Amino acid sequence: MKLNQIARELNGELVGDTDLVITGLAKIEQAGPGELTFLANPKYSKFLKETKASAVLVARDQENIQIPHIKVDDPYLAFLIILEKFNPPQQPNFSGTHSTAVIDPTATIAKNARIGPLVFIGRNVSIGEDTTIYPGCVLLDSVSIGGNCILYPNVSIRERCIIGDNVIIHNGTVIGSDGFGFAPVGDTYRKIPQMGIVRIEDDIEIGANCTIDRATLGETIIKQGCKLDNLIQIAHNVVIEENTVIAAQTGVSGSTKIGKNVTLAGQVGTVGHITIGDKAIVAAKSGVSKSIPPGEVWFGYPAQQITRQKKVEASLRNLPELMKRTHQLEKALIELEEKLKKNERGK
Amino acid sequence: MKLNQIARELNGELVGDTDLVITGLAKIEQAGPGELTFLANPKYSKFLKETKASAVLVARDQENIQIPHIKVDDPYLAFLIILEKFNPPQQPNFSGTHSTAVIDPTATIAKNARIGPLVFIGRNVSIGEDTTIYPGCVLLDSVSIGGNCILYPNVSIRERCIIGDNVIIHNGTVIGSDGFGFAPVGDTYRKIPQMGIVRIEDDIEIGANCTIDRATLGETIIKQGCKLDNLIQIAHNVVIEENTVIAAQTGVSGSTKIGKNVTLAGQVGTVGHITIGDKAIVAAKSGVSKSIPPGEVWFGYPAQQITRQKKVEASLRNLPELMKRTHQLEKALIELEEKLKKNERGK
Amino acid sequence: MKLNQIARELNGELVGDTDLVITGLAKIEQAGPGELTFLANPKYSKFLKETKASAVLVARDQENIQIPHIKVDDPYLAFLIILEKFNPPQQPNFSGTHSTAVIDPTATIAKNARIGPLVFIGRNVSIGEDTTIYPGCVLLDSVSIGGNCILYPNVSIRERCIIGDNVIIHNGTVIGSDGFGFAPVGDTYRKIPQMGIVRIEDDIEIGANCTIDRATLGETIIKQGCKLDNLIQIAHNVVIEENTVIAAQTGVSGSTKIGKNVTLAGQVGTVGHITIGDKAIVAAKSGVSKSIPPGEVWFGYPAQQITRQKKVEASLRNLPELMKRTHQLEKALIELEEKLKKNERGK
Repeated sequence: MKLNQIARELNGELVGDTDLVITGLAKIEQAGPGELTFLANPKYSKFLKETKASAVLVARDQENIQIPHIKVDDPYLAFLIILEKFNPPQQPNFSGTHSTAVIDPTATIAKNARIGPLVFIGRNVSIGEDTTIYPGCVLLDSVSIGGNCILYPNVSIRERCIIGDNVIIHNGTVIGSDGFGFAPVGDTYRKIPQMGIVRIEDDIEIGANCTIDRATLGETIIKQGCKLDNLIQIAHNVVIEENTVIAAQTGVSGSTKIGKNVTLAGQVGTVGHITIGDKAIVAAKSGVSKSIPPGEVWFGYPAQQITRQKKVEASLRNLPELMKRTHQLEKALIELEEKLKKNERGK
Repeated sequence: MKLNQIARELNGELVGDTDLVITGLAKIEQAGPGELTFLANPKYSKFLKETKASAVLVARDQENIQIPHIKVDDPYLAFLIILEKFNPPQQPNFSGTHSTAVIDPTATIAKNARIGPLVFIGRNVSIGEDTTIYPGCVLLDSVSIGGNCILYPNVSIRERCIIGDNVIIHNGTVIGSDGFGFAPVGDTYRKIPQMGIVRIEDDIEIGANCTIDRATLGETIIKQGCKLDNLIQIAHNVVIEENTVIAAQTGVSGSTKIGKNVTLAGQVGTVGHITIGDKAIVAAKSGVSKSIPPGEVWFGYPAQQITRQKKVEASLRNLPELMKRTHQLEKALIELEEKLKKNERGK
Repeated sequence: MKLNQIARELNGELVGDTDLVITGLAKIEQAGPGELTFLANPKYSKFLKETKASAVLVARDQENIQIPHIKVDDPYLAFLIILEKFNPPQQPNFSGTHSTAVIDPTATIAKNARIGPLVFIGRNVSIGEDTTIYPGCVLLDSVSIGGNCILYPNVSIRERCIIGDNVIIHNGTVIGSDGFGFAPVGDTYRKIPQMGIVRIEDDIEIGANCTIDRATLGETIIKQGCKLDNLIQIAHNVVIEENTVIAAQTGVSGSTKIGKNVTLAGQVGTVGHITIGDKAIVAAKSGVSKSIPPGEVWFGYPAQQITRQKKVEASLRNLPELMKRTHQLEKALIELEEKLKKNERGK
């Protein structure tokens, strides 16, 4: 790609050789001749002089650039856009519906969808335009998948679950397994039938080997724009609002409601039936046992507001010293009491 | 279903219109005309007047009910039983052994079993009556599965493992993977062959994407009536006694013995070679580093009896204040000492 | 096997009946007639007299043995070697490339490799000699697998990932899923394309249902001799040096570097972009928030050196008592102050 094509693509202001041919992309400290790089973080400004890149994406107000460059609003975002142009997602080696896929005749599959080898598709399943189902996926009866989705290998989706448009689900993830519900009967347990579904809205990415349980009644819902990492557990009847991000190995217990633009870091656990407010942040490995108000940052086990938690941790580090100080106080007090007694006797 | 049919099914006492037709079931605060609901928790009694349900299941001693109702011993359990009647588990769209399943000729498959498409079944595998194996499951040589089991999609079971009757295993779960055993040889590790099996007894449910490792020698055992949630790790040679319940993302380390009717909440971890006594309860996210006596409730990291842990936590919350108090004590003591010195000098 | 064959195999010194036929192996306290056992741990010496085993493997300097025995350098290792002889890994019931496997014609498959039923192999995949791919595995385009590997059922490997020789990957594990990278754009997130790969070197074992993400650019690397347990999360751009051992349900965040011969116990979590030094040990369930120097043992949440952590824990246990002592100090001080005032007034 020529530099002026890239500038046009990005709606950027090109300074330098318009016909320069860009052959690859790299980070500023690693880029070599022919490569385009970017400067987003001022910490990396020092590399601007040293870089061997042939061109650089910079912010509109960046000055003192010796090499050809394109000025854009957000250099990192611009870099990502060009990165994708250079690396279009590879198309798999199957198209249409593969002869080894087992597809129920009642299923409705869009013309441009790709159903890979060794896929199972049950009764009344519907699959939208441009969706790709990789080998080993299993979609049981009445599952609905929107358009432009990717289901990577070995994803399985239970009956009646609904997936929106532009959803990516990584390998091995399970959608719609039974919620964990049992009623005690004496010393044993009786299964509570899990008759609801899972609804995944649009523009969502779900990592590998996650488990998202169907509702007991009604729906477990993940709303538009959420991003989930790997090995995450979402229990029955959980609702996660728009654009929430959840890192790996986190677990959300039954009926908990998570707001919009929340961040749950890795290995977090929450109890059931609580609410985590919009834009709240829960730091890694926290155990959340009560509701969190919107916008707050929580941390710890049990989790509390991070400022309180940090104070406790600081005192905790000083705890052995505090023990010593208390011991010295006790000694000093006893000495003082004895002195006082002596004084009194002395009178 | 008519109300008197439901009453007969439940062995209940019907009061009201025996021919009333029930078209669905719902919670008391959500139910509408034509629907049957239940009242189990006294907290919800207030809804008894307001509910739009056409009929309600109540306890034998419930009074003041305006609408048709059925008196039963346990209204919640009764509701579940009728819920199941209204929603019989959906039969998959395959029966017998599907033509795309790859089944070794030495396997023994009961006549009423359903082996789905794209299933692999190895040598000498046996599968009992009315068992359903969903697409993508892989059963290696000499696996034995009892009657009336459900293996959801993509479950895989390694050689010689044994599954009892009435067992449900959810999608992607792995039974019989090698235990994690290595002998150090200098700076490297030599694999310790894992030659035992996993034995899953009757009436057990295991969630999605769990991993249950085979024993080094002998058996990893999960006994009758246990219920396991999703993403659980059970290491080699673990024994779990009857009717124990384990929530999601919990891990049990090698050779640990877990008693009957134990509850391990979510994200709990235990070290290996310990014993957790019958009816013990371990609260969420606890790290259990020693054996727990029967009937005790433990919590924390490291876990201890919950009363002790709660006391520590309470003091912990007061720790910053304790630091202040100690500081004030030190100041007061110094002042007192100086005063005393002054007094002495003054004499 | 005769005892003298075993002795020859182990390069050991045989004392006793050379023609003794060994029919099985067992632990010293459980072994019976015809069985060979071993004594490695001096704690078990007492069983040497009582054991019903027909022969025993002992250290070179062991004395007072009544039964036939073989003296070797390392009795436990010797036992493992013979254990494997007695229990050669079972060969699956497929060989060559199974007719139901879907294999792209551009793939290169070594003559002795076994490709099981219902396996998918994409374009330009290469598979080495004596490698076994179990049913349900999915290898996307340009994946490379070395020789003598075992991929258990339902393993899936994304495009271009590289697996060395002598690698065992257990059921359901995912190699090369997209790293978790999103750039915020207002309240929403834009996917950062994950264009790198995962490289797994030689002599590695990876447990069941793990997830190892591909790098954003470059490689996520697991180096020679590492052993990973089940349900482990390795994020994008992580590098793990030789012979490191990671227990179940542990998660390593993006770009973290883990040294050689490190031990991460179960349910550990680390933040991203830190370094864990060679031979460091992190105890179970720790949350590691900063780099760990080589050789240190860390524990806790947040993790710190174990000696410091243990001191804090000890004080923590005494915290309720410390509260009481502080309260008593305050009371005593007030009494003292009052006494002093009285004395002053009394003067």
